[in-house]
Amino acid sequence: MGRGHVGSRAAPLSPEQIVRLEDDAVVVLDQRLLPEHEIERRCVSAAEVADAIATLAVRGAPAIGIAAAYGLALTATRGEDVEAAHAILAASRPTAVNLRWALDEMLPAPTPERARAIHEAEVERCRRMGEHAAGLCAEAARARARAARAARAARAARAARARQASPLRVLTHCNAGGLATGGYGSAVGAIRSAFEQGLVERVWVDETRPLLQGARLTAYELEALGIPHTVVVDGAAAFLMATGEVDIVITGADRIARNGDTANKIGTYGLAVLAAHHEIPFVVVAPTSTLDPAAATGAQIPIEERDGAEITARFPARNPAFDVTPAALITAIVTERGVHRTPFASSLPAPAGAP
Amino acid sequence: MGRGHVGSRAAPLSPEQIVRLEDDAVVVLDQRLLPEHEIERRCVSAAEVADAIATLAVRGAPAIGIAAAYGLALTATRGEDVEAAHAILAASRPTAVNLRWALDEMLPAPTPERARAIHEAEVERCRRMGEHAAGLCAEAARARARAARAARAARAARAARARQASPLRVLTHCNAGGLATGGYGSAVGAIRSAFEQGLVERVWVDETRPLLQGARLTAYELEALGIPHTVVVDGAAAFLMATGEVDIVITGADRIARNGDTANKIGTYGLAVLAAHHEIPFVVVAPTSTLDPAAATGAQIPIEERDGAEITARFPARNPAFDVTPAALITAIVTERGVHRTPFASSLPAPAGAP
Repeated sequence: MGRGHVGSRAAPLSPEQIVRLEDDAVVVLDQRLLPEHEIERRCVSAAEVADAIATLAVRGAPAIGIAAAYGLALTATRGEDVEAAHAILAASRPTAVNLRWALDEMLPAPTPERARAIHEAEVERCRRMGEHAAGLCAEAARARARAARAARAARAARAARARQASPLRVLTHCNAGGLATGGYGSAVGAIRSAFEQGLVERVWVDETRPLLQGARLTAYELEALGIPHTVVVDGAAAFLMATGEVDIVITGADRIARNGDTANKIGTYGLAVLAAHHEIPFVVVAPTSTLDPAAATGAQIPIEERDGAEITARFPARNPAFDVTPAALITAIVTERGVHRTPFASSLPAPAGAP
Repeated sequence: MGRGHVGSRAAPLSPEQIVRLEDDAVVVLDQRLLPEHEIERRCVSAAEVADAIATLAVRGAPAIGIAAAYGLALTATRGEDVEAAHAILAASRPTAVNLRWALDEMLPAPTPERARAIHEAEVERCRRMGEHAAGLCAEAARARARAARAARAARAARAARARQASPLRVLTHCNAGGLATGGYGSAVGAIRSAFEQGLVERVWVDETRPLLQGARLTAYELEALGIPHTVVVDGAAAFLMATGEVDIVITGADRIARNGDTANKIGTYGLAVLAAHHEIPFVVVAPTSTLDPAAATGAQIPIEERDGAEITARFPARNPAFDVTPAALITAIVTERGVHRTPFASSLPAPAGAP
């Protein structure tokens, strides 16, 4: 992988470019340096993988689960203490449940093959989520076309485009792309599938302060996919909704409680309130590895508070990294099993099992 | 004024430190370099003042009006073309109506004395707004105390603190402080007045992307005032409201239409929607020089779109600098004349006249 990358990516990153296991290391693409530099980081122990997760060199709920699974396989291959490695890796970040899920899936047989199977299964889940979400987008595109027709009909009847769908202006937050999921992407995967079906006109990319995962990572991935995109500050989302320039909001998730309450990057909850106020569908796309059967509601989801210096080193700052969106504000949750709607307590599937 | 300022300000900036007229120049404190450096910029012509306004060296609706008034006085003193200077200054930024207001107030007699009188009057308006707003804060503080009592009463009756007020956790956006208003401040002035009466516990400062007026300027002013403050990313405001940590939202304004629709820094409208959703008072504090009698509603307010490179130079970006909050989401508008409530069309006073 080139150092000092300049210009645009010609193709999306492959799963192996994002995270992979080699004989002596877990290799991750350092997401902190993107989009300026595509530089790999070699983690030669579970502790180094845990550090890469804690410092966000690798980030995104499914991706940190995959990296942790590889870290456990590396430990076992070397005959080192798997229980200790499990503890170190599980403690590296608190909110995304995929981390703990992947580690627990690995424990019975922490082999490289099993870790690679988890990685492949996660990417395959994203592809299936993309197909299901594209169906939702097609629905929204038809609704947009109907609304446009109704507006036109008020002036003059035009039956010509009666059954046509209008491509969507999608707003997304943070990065729920291939980087976050080990390949393909959850929210970005949904956008990609819908775009391939002609259902996406443009993507508004929330820059996502403080770490700019939107402006750095989602824009970089959409560029490689050739999907029209425009970065906006987080505070501009409400403006775009009010001016009628957002047709659907699609985000990923870090943990979903049994009732559908969903933890995701700070700022997601506010978007859901704004979408409800503007009667815009708010859709969460996440694999079943993100479901937490132990959390009855969002109140049981631990929220990571990170260092205020990520915001400003000059003045006191508070830096909650996630928030919880109540199920009542979510139009649909899309997993690889399909499109789930309220009441989520009965519509959500069981969490993913071993591959 | 020192160069390379380090450490904290011991005292708030005086009106003359923010913007003043000297014999041969309008001198402004360059707000782009704060809080790291307190460096003055000398503008020796109306065109240089217009450039300082357009490039945000001086910013804030009342402050750019004051700077423009000094620019016109400088032009007249030199016997240069006042009409031409008026046109250049009026075109420097589109959204804040104070700019045009101050220039129109100056035209009949563009003297240094008149410009200084406008500056003094604007600061005096802020002081009066602060007093009125503190009254509103006292109300909110009593409401907070009642709510806390009700919560306690559910467990055990405690009459002891019956008439006591609970100090407020205030959230503010952008910078509507002394820097933005030529001294004292509108939203920050309200917070300052309320704090002096023991009504403010803490201020949440939205960092306010893309130019970080909150994290750079409001935090810097609150530090000098000794008011406890914590910077958060814009996306965290909804989280803090949901966790019950925001009692009132107070912002400034760049232009207020006759029906109360209010233009302010991008992100303000979203805050107003979020405040309504959480049943938190949303208060606008602005002098009557911010009222625009020519705008019936917010639809007549021009919204400045700035260079996308202020957000990211690497990917396409869109950068609307303001948004409009519908009057229906505003609890109260505070001017130097008092506290105005809905229906604003009848409750708002006439715009300020000449000093």
